Amino acid sequence: MPKISAKAHEMPASPIRKLVPFAEAAYKQGKTVYHLNIGQPDIHTPETAINAVKIADLTVIEYSHSAGFQSYRDKLAKYYQKNDINVNSEDIIITTGGSEALIFGFMSTCDPGDEVIIPEPFYANYNGFAVMAGLNVVPVTADIRDGFALPPIEEIEKKIGPKTKAIVICNPGNPTGYLYSKEELEKLRDIVKKHDLFLFADEVYREFCYDGAVPFSVMNLEGIENNVIMIDSVSKRYSMCGARIGALISKNREVMTSALKFAQARLSPPTIEQIASEAALDTPQSYFDEVVAEYVERRNITVDGLNKIPGVFCPKPSGAFYCVAEFPVDSTEKFCQWLLEEYEYEGATVMMAPASGFYSTPGKGEKEARIAYVLKKESLEKSVRILEEALKVYPGRTI
Amino acid sequence: MPKISAKAHEMPASPIRKLVPFAEAAYKQGKTVYHLNIGQPDIHTPETAINAVKIADLTVIEYSHSAGFQSYRDKLAKYYQKNDINVNSEDIIITTGGSEALIFGFMSTCDPGDEVIIPEPFYANYNGFAVMAGLNVVPVTADIRDGFALPPIEEIEKKIGPKTKAIVICNPGNPTGYLYSKEELEKLRDIVKKHDLFLFADEVYREFCYDGAVPFSVMNLEGIENNVIMIDSVSKRYSMCGARIGALISKNREVMTSALKFAQARLSPPTIEQIASEAALDTPQSYFDEVVAEYVERRNITVDGLNKIPGVFCPKPSGAFYCVAEFPVDSTEKFCQWLLEEYEYEGATVMMAPASGFYSTPGKGEKEARIAYVLKKESLEKSVRILEEALKVYPGRTI
Repeated sequence: MPKISAKAHEMPASPIRKLVPFAEAAYKQGKTVYHLNIGQPDIHTPETAINAVKIADLTVIEYSHSAGFQSYRDKLAKYYQKNDINVNSEDIIITTGGSEALIFGFMSTCDPGDEVIIPEPFYANYNGFAVMAGLNVVPVTADIRDGFALPPIEEIEKKIGPKTKAIVICNPGNPTGYLYSKEELEKLRDIVKKHDLFLFADEVYREFCYDGAVPFSVMNLEGIENNVIMIDSVSKRYSMCGARIGALISKNREVMTSALKFAQARLSPPTIEQIASEAALDTPQSYFDEVVAEYVERRNITVDGLNKIPGVFCPKPSGAFYCVAEFPVDSTEKFCQWLLEEYEYEGATVMMAPASGFYSTPGKGEKEARIAYVLKKESLEKSVRILEEALKVYPGRTI
Repeated sequence: MPKISAKAHEMPASPIRKLVPFAEAAYKQGKTVYHLNIGQPDIHTPETAINAVKIADLTVIEYSHSAGFQSYRDKLAKYYQKNDINVNSEDIIITTGGSEALIFGFMSTCDPGDEVIIPEPFYANYNGFAVMAGLNVVPVTADIRDGFALPPIEEIEKKIGPKTKAIVICNPGNPTGYLYSKEELEKLRDIVKKHDLFLFADEVYREFCYDGAVPFSVMNLEGIENNVIMIDSVSKRYSMCGARIGALISKNREVMTSALKFAQARLSPPTIEQIASEAALDTPQSYFDEVVAEYVERRNITVDGLNKIPGVFCPKPSGAFYCVAEFPVDSTEKFCQWLLEEYEYEGATVMMAPASGFYSTPGKGEKEARIAYVLKKESLEKSVRILEEALKVYPGRTI
């Protein structure tokens, strides 16, 4: 039997994979499981997107242009311009999800053995894309006590070596919810410029900023127009995770010409979902106002509730719909498994994602877990209550 | 300005890219251009697929399972079983097009620097996927005078070395239309087994077999169940090229477990297009009967017509909807450009894909071009006529 590749061995499995059998056992026991572990919002997709698909006059589901429909790219450029983000349609390649944008971006700029610096904790699948492209991830640890702000710029600069090709950020951040300030981004700009690196920014949570916080796009950082690559997606913005429509955005012509070659090899992004995504751009502001108001309430219930539990610490994020909390336990891997396997409160339990899967440095984040506050308020209230009660009796508690 | 990667430089552009500006110039001159260069059929997508999307009760466009909807995999397994192909639902991962299936397959089985043997001419994008995975393509030339039959098995075996990990075939073939016989596949089976290689078979044109020819799937080759990886797609079968729904199929558990990790990193294939693809499985046989009858006529018009032109040689393929023809010219790259730039007959010209882009060996196929007979019969008749007249006056003609 022929052997699989070293790359296949190296490829990381999903960080919650180990917990899935325990969740399944919990269902079988008849427990309600509140899924705080996944980023699939329950928010409705805008009707304008759904309707566009229903009324589309399709007789042949044809390939689109490899860079996506021109009409969609034009309209998407207008969306950025409306948001004061400096993007034109020729700066856009429509991709199959933000995932593909990052893969094309990595492959266009980095070779096997090159290094990318990423503040940790970071979105776990960046590891997978790095393995696909043969890159080494060099983490710089952000501190939960600082609310996961950008680590001191000197710490980042220390990691820059001859193999460093890029810095990767997610802003607002998954899993931390942290929103980088303009000042933080300008510090990044300075070292990116100084060392002539690429700066990747995953800005898919742009619409989810709270308490009056305004996101600042890397596309507006002056002086590094040729260094910046922005990753975007309709997944979260319009609650269209299953559409798999994203975008790779850059002013760097060489990068765009290269990325287009990768895009041509796979022919085109999905046609019907592009129709939905193009229509989604007509979503009225009132939709986002309602969604943001809902998430603020959900965040407050979750984060304020968690911080009232003795020994739990959870910085209050300004963006996205995740938070990372520290628990007074031996290990969140064990705690999360125990919650599913051994515990229930009034017939229910919670599933969280142990944060160690979001760190690249071994041993980091072992008392932390990521919580996605994508459930209804009552479910989040119950979830916090379950965690509070569970921590009174969990055998591995440390207070 | 930071430098793009070596991989980006290495990544091949589309073989017809160079001709596109000439086609655009031809439109501007008001010429009709018959596009024999692309594999986008004009055949209608089955109504059952289109309607399924229109009536789908979607409120949130959610992620599917990373391996695709279970319901779709179950139904797809039944399709294979109905076609006497030995596949169960656990042998299937739904991918974003056949392209992604091949990328996941390559990355799961091969490491950078490994070699894959491919009979040439072959589907040009295999080169792109090989570059993405860091693989070296080792071609074995098939002869147009043999109708592009499998090259002598000794020729293939000679190319097997310590770095060889896989043999890749497309059956029926793009660009040749050649359908491998069971005997040819058994010869491949023997060397695959002897050298413990993987055998990738792209079988996306399975439904397009003519003159009573019956395709034989690699999944039914006995004794190499753990070596075989089949690539499939709805693109051609249901004229749903834009759906980007394919499948990676194997009995090898290690391969499937590995491929699933790659699939998890990109989360899921497109949701709405999976709904369409699942429904497309209900397409009645009469649809295929009509389509095949249509393609047989189109093939006959094209191939018989070409062979009547002095100096043109075109083997008659048994499958897919392409043929590769040899022209009495200095170079088809030049001839194809000239057709767009300099020539017209009754206000029209044709665009073909020079075959050199489908060969990996430099200099091969320079008098050949690929023709996709995906246009209406009248257009194909006109196209053959244009080629006949053009060859009377083309300055680089060799007869």
